[in-house]
Amino acid sequence: MDRIRATYRITASESESRARAEALAAEQSVEMPVAAIGDERVLRETVATVEAIRPHADYFDVTLGIAAATTGAEASQLANMLFGNCSLQPEVELIDVEFPGGYEKAFPGPRFGIEGIRAATGARGRALTCTALKPQGSTVEHLAKLARTFALAGIDVIKDDHGIADQPPHPFASRVPAVQEAIDAANRETGGRTLYAPTFSGGAAALASQAKTVRDHGVKMALVAPMLVGLPAFVDLRHALDVPVMAHPAFAGSVRIAAPVLLGTLFRLLGADATIFPNHGGRFSFSRETCLAIAKSARSPWDGVKPVLPVPAGGMTVERVGEMLSGYGPDTMLLIGGGLLSAKERLLDRSREFVGAVRGSA
Amino acid sequence: MDRIRATYRITASESESRARAEALAAEQSVEMPVAAIGDERVLRETVATVEAIRPHADYFDVTLGIAAATTGAEASQLANMLFGNCSLQPEVELIDVEFPGGYEKAFPGPRFGIEGIRAATGARGRALTCTALKPQGSTVEHLAKLARTFALAGIDVIKDDHGIADQPPHPFASRVPAVQEAIDAANRETGGRTLYAPTFSGGAAALASQAKTVRDHGVKMALVAPMLVGLPAFVDLRHALDVPVMAHPAFAGSVRIAAPVLLGTLFRLLGADATIFPNHGGRFSFSRETCLAIAKSARSPWDGVKPVLPVPAGGMTVERVGEMLSGYGPDTMLLIGGGLLSAKERLLDRSREFVGAVRGSA
Repeated sequence: MDRIRATYRITASESESRARAEALAAEQSVEMPVAAIGDERVLRETVATVEAIRPHADYFDVTLGIAAATTGAEASQLANMLFGNCSLQPEVELIDVEFPGGYEKAFPGPRFGIEGIRAATGARGRALTCTALKPQGSTVEHLAKLARTFALAGIDVIKDDHGIADQPPHPFASRVPAVQEAIDAANRETGGRTLYAPTFSGGAAALASQAKTVRDHGVKMALVAPMLVGLPAFVDLRHALDVPVMAHPAFAGSVRIAAPVLLGTLFRLLGADATIFPNHGGRFSFSRETCLAIAKSARSPWDGVKPVLPVPAGGMTVERVGEMLSGYGPDTMLLIGGGLLSAKERLLDRSREFVGAVRGSA
Repeated sequence: MDRIRATYRITASESESRARAEALAAEQSVEMPVAAIGDERVLRETVATVEAIRPHADYFDVTLGIAAATTGAEASQLANMLFGNCSLQPEVELIDVEFPGGYEKAFPGPRFGIEGIRAATGARGRALTCTALKPQGSTVEHLAKLARTFALAGIDVIKDDHGIADQPPHPFASRVPAVQEAIDAANRETGGRTLYAPTFSGGAAALASQAKTVRDHGVKMALVAPMLVGLPAFVDLRHALDVPVMAHPAFAGSVRIAAPVLLGTLFRLLGADATIFPNHGGRFSFSRETCLAIAKSARSPWDGVKPVLPVPAGGMTVERVGEMLSGYGPDTMLLIGGGLLSAKERLLDRSREFVGAVRGSA
């Protein structure tokens, strides 16, 4: 029987570890006292198993075997089985997940992955560059002008700020064609292939309408925060789009699922081609070790699931490009947003410095 | 200009409070250095304002004024503006939200609320009773038999275990009609009005198909975990259904949004008619104070938004009914699942004891 091996870190005394492990196995499967279950088949096939307990100083790690069939081959139920009820137990953190071979077939996975994004941008043999249109509330004209400047500088991917959704100052249906047109014009001037990744948001009808706008206007990438739209909606969107999808970590940081598992493994399984995460040393407190582990989850070999681009971001500057590339290597996309915009009237120059620093490091 | 007043608790030294408050205001609105913004209108209308800073011993509370327009009157973008990026800052918790008058009009709110659920069940002048069909992996016949027993005992609402989604042992399309039929038959025998609330899960197509099954078979309630299907999908489902919707907290506990805000205020705004939460003293660690605050958020007066049923649950027993009712009062639904099923062959008797204890306390 196929089992998903899910490892949880439980902050409790070691003397409780066996009882806590068995309680967690019940909580994350049948959610009732196992002793009250009379059906032998349920006991054998549905109740999660305790595969291992590893004690540490102030916590212990428990590996459960969760029956793959209980996840119903569907994103919301997978999240439920991995971390539904135990999300309500603050002493429990999900730190690792291993899927049985073949499990990935139930989910779309990345359509493009690193190679697909390299093919779309033409960026070969080097890391990629990314920036963001900001701030929210700007006019569409301003955003299009920024996009033109970034594209002239040769940045590979220009994404919307993830807060630029579908609000009155910049409705998706008018902003996206205008920005794409500005980038197309700049690409014609430079011979470059800068991509635009607008922010998707909202319910099923809104996402479908936004996907249509993207198709109609030749937009070649998409940005979406899976935890904001919901994991099943993210899967639906991955199926609906035929361009690379970049996942944004908004609303995902507070979940007590280790970032390499959520932003790396799970977003990748569900269809992200690139995954943004807060780099160490910026406005967020992820450690260098966590960031490298996210990059590893994004890129590690996984039968049937393409490797995807790690995208470190958040308070980054052009001065850090060398250090970031030496840490992450070339199969990475560096995202600098505010660090470019702070240059104001020197925006084109600063953007060119960014592009030059990344290309020079190749 | 209308502002949402959102209060964050920041665990950091008071000497940093002004700088941290202003950084958070930028993070949760324009997400770039404010000094680099040239557009006066953006500075005035889009950048979040720091409305108050209140120091405490080991932390400080910051109230931001978030421009209502930036949320685009839509659930995913509302979550983004309230707690998108700062979810990635572990020292930040969202502890309170107040919406400007009229803001609620952009969201559906509860269609039925407490009064609507009382009308549907006929439960007047007393608290309501609820239980769950478990375990996942059981045959449909077993689940239907359990439902019959619970309905014969006169329990008001029988919900699926939230892990019973759409998996092979009990597909939604065959399980739901069978369970509803068992409950209908029992209702005819007793003259009672027990409702069934099946678990919704999956993407847009799955949810639409499940809603159709519910309509076709006269099912009178629904259960869904908003954080699992996604907040916008929850809103879509609320619009698609014409029965009361009960929200489940799976996957919601780990979010650093205070439970009264997320399970109470936000789920209510988005359309929940009842909200399940882990009662104090059970398998989860919510305090009594937190639980009462959730109940308050569910029921407090809110112009244009009906009060909704708090549903304490999680490791509850019949013995605790008196204490729970004295704490929560009659506008409450008590949910006991495993505590009834543990009675095994005495299930009907134990369920009748539960119903009797709640009715006797009225």
